[in-house]
Amino acid sequence: MTSVDPTGTVTSPRGFRAGGTYAGIKTYGDGKLDLGLLVSDVPCTAAAVYTTSRFRAPAIEVDRDHLADGRAQAVAVNSGVANAGTGARGLADARRFAALAAARLGIDVRDVLVCSTGVIGEFLPLDKIEAALPAIELSAEGGMAFSRAIMTTDTRPKHGAVRVGPYTIGGCAKGAGMIHPNMATMLAFLTTDAPVARAFLERALREAVDRSFNLVSVDGDTSPSDTVIVLANAMAGGEPIAEGHPLAGSFQESLEALCIHLAKAIARDGEGATKLIEFTVRGAAEEADARRLVRLLSTSYLLKSAVHGADPNWGRIVAVIGRSGARFEEESVRVALCGTEVFAGGRPTECDLGRVAEAMRGPEVTIEVDLGAGSASATGWGCDLSADYVAINADYHT
Amino acid sequence: MTSVDPTGTVTSPRGFRAGGTYAGIKTYGDGKLDLGLLVSDVPCTAAAVYTTSRFRAPAIEVDRDHLADGRAQAVAVNSGVANAGTGARGLADARRFAALAAARLGIDVRDVLVCSTGVIGEFLPLDKIEAALPAIELSAEGGMAFSRAIMTTDTRPKHGAVRVGPYTIGGCAKGAGMIHPNMATMLAFLTTDAPVARAFLERALREAVDRSFNLVSVDGDTSPSDTVIVLANAMAGGEPIAEGHPLAGSFQESLEALCIHLAKAIARDGEGATKLIEFTVRGAAEEADARRLVRLLSTSYLLKSAVHGADPNWGRIVAVIGRSGARFEEESVRVALCGTEVFAGGRPTECDLGRVAEAMRGPEVTIEVDLGAGSASATGWGCDLSADYVAINADYHT
Repeated sequence: MTSVDPTGTVTSPRGFRAGGTYAGIKTYGDGKLDLGLLVSDVPCTAAAVYTTSRFRAPAIEVDRDHLADGRAQAVAVNSGVANAGTGARGLADARRFAALAAARLGIDVRDVLVCSTGVIGEFLPLDKIEAALPAIELSAEGGMAFSRAIMTTDTRPKHGAVRVGPYTIGGCAKGAGMIHPNMATMLAFLTTDAPVARAFLERALREAVDRSFNLVSVDGDTSPSDTVIVLANAMAGGEPIAEGHPLAGSFQESLEALCIHLAKAIARDGEGATKLIEFTVRGAAEEADARRLVRLLSTSYLLKSAVHGADPNWGRIVAVIGRSGARFEEESVRVALCGTEVFAGGRPTECDLGRVAEAMRGPEVTIEVDLGAGSASATGWGCDLSADYVAINADYHT
Repeated sequence: MTSVDPTGTVTSPRGFRAGGTYAGIKTYGDGKLDLGLLVSDVPCTAAAVYTTSRFRAPAIEVDRDHLADGRAQAVAVNSGVANAGTGARGLADARRFAALAAARLGIDVRDVLVCSTGVIGEFLPLDKIEAALPAIELSAEGGMAFSRAIMTTDTRPKHGAVRVGPYTIGGCAKGAGMIHPNMATMLAFLTTDAPVARAFLERALREAVDRSFNLVSVDGDTSPSDTVIVLANAMAGGEPIAEGHPLAGSFQESLEALCIHLAKAIARDGEGATKLIEFTVRGAAEEADARRLVRLLSTSYLLKSAVHGADPNWGRIVAVIGRSGARFEEESVRVALCGTEVFAGGRPTECDLGRVAEAMRGPEVTIEVDLGAGSASATGWGCDLSADYVAINADYHT
């Protein structure tokens, strides 16, 4: 298992600088950072994965355009306003945001990617952004400030780094679904000083995202702005990593380990969350069944409520399995809660549910399902549902 | 529009008697009814629709078997224990429950249908049921007692009746998803004194359920026991209603109106709910798009929380539309909240959100989406998400 350094950041790899400032975009909180820049000393091979929502934020249109050549050098992010649901003006504003960042950095606008996260349906305050960009101090220690500048109602920054041979991969992420009233977006940024071939980087990112961010859920909602970007600047030298390179497998594993680290951090920091839940489905007839069941389990109101109350309520797990559409025979299904088998052979096991409840009082709860129908599996993450979730998302009036 | 008499019950049609008693099955609450019988003076043409869950409760296996001939005369229901997730013993117990009820009523066991709702994973207390069955007083006024006997943590009984020419259709329902910790099941029972041909009754029920119970959601969870049963005893005389009968259309409409009445009652009584939400999707390219979007809107944590807080948070509606998979062009989508258009042409409208918020403080909130992509539509119902939902479902330990 690749070990992730939880103190690492996007500036852990060589040749990356970053920083953040308060531009006055966030109207909630007080003096939090809300504008960040991340830049490489040299142009990078780059890849990105975007939201599957049909309502895509304008920033994504800009990034797809700028990434058509697989090359980028910087990322500019603001929090507080998502610039989504803003029509043609929103798209012009996103382009202007990229141009302002390019001017500040002295690089080609087509090498700048932009992201915006926050309130849907409000326009970007470009005057505030323009005024604040010069104030951002870029440094090789600035990864932490960048991690903070992308937060909306996250309670803590999420970052880390891994080593792959002579190379480093750093990353940070924000968001847990659509946390705050009107707030949107999960964002993640990954950097590496490894030389990586474009096609390999694109595939590696897609696979890593599929096994990490795409299997994490706080509330089942997908925002119009979800974006994961990876920048590889090759500054640590060597032959480009591609299929057949001795480090190809390790690079893929490390990227995935870092993405999982960040995805779990998002779930743990879900709005109102008090527990991280890890869902593992085994014995599925095919991976699609396993993945779908993980997603349904991680979004069940009843199951999330039961976990919050440390209630070993396996009936709710069985109910979700039943409606999942996965293939199985009732007699072959096994369910374990915090390592104790509670359901097997179509009926309750003779276990001590009091001890299971005790185990569920901890900060991490595991739920394992074996469908007994094949050999496919999937693992995903979520969090419990607390009254605070409702308070955070309801007790606010526009 | 067919008008539903909210005071009607399953014994409103001629020739039906019902009753309920406390058998000591429910361990929560105190002295509530938990065992009910509904019987027709003569055998009925009957149809049923069951849960789509692959984990089906044993009672459903028994009912499918007993309804193979399209005929039934009575329904026996207990609340408190769902007899689900109980394997082979559970199936034997469900058969025994039917036999005990048949003996009590002096009719053929194959004319008895059974339903159980309550804790998953516990066995039926057949001794208590056997001891309590004789205590049930059956009468033409017993529909209300029957409505109460099927409740688990419902806060009020749900019933009604409609007239169709010389005929009456009565009904009752319970449940709002999987309300109580470990509690399962939505149940609905419909009776009519009309003569109805079997094939027509089956199709009429399926269509009515599709436009009512199948479009209501409290928490998105499907129980292993969901069942809707209709009994037609023909006691009001006349030619059997079938395709081409002058009352065929009215019968279908009235059955649907009664099912919608009961479905809305379920949503309004959702756990912790303070508001009924009606979702209408128009302008869809096909009905499947409209139905899917209604379901996604009615299960969005964020949207349900926003409605609870009377927050006119249309960004959350737009986000759900985006991830729904429905076909549309962003510029053609329109969203209205409590009758006020808040989003159109890809951007916010110039409306007074303060007035919308005011309207949302009432007990019923309407959310309308026009996708501008076709002429298909769907309407469904749900409820807001309150901190009480979490309290009800978490603050309980096995």
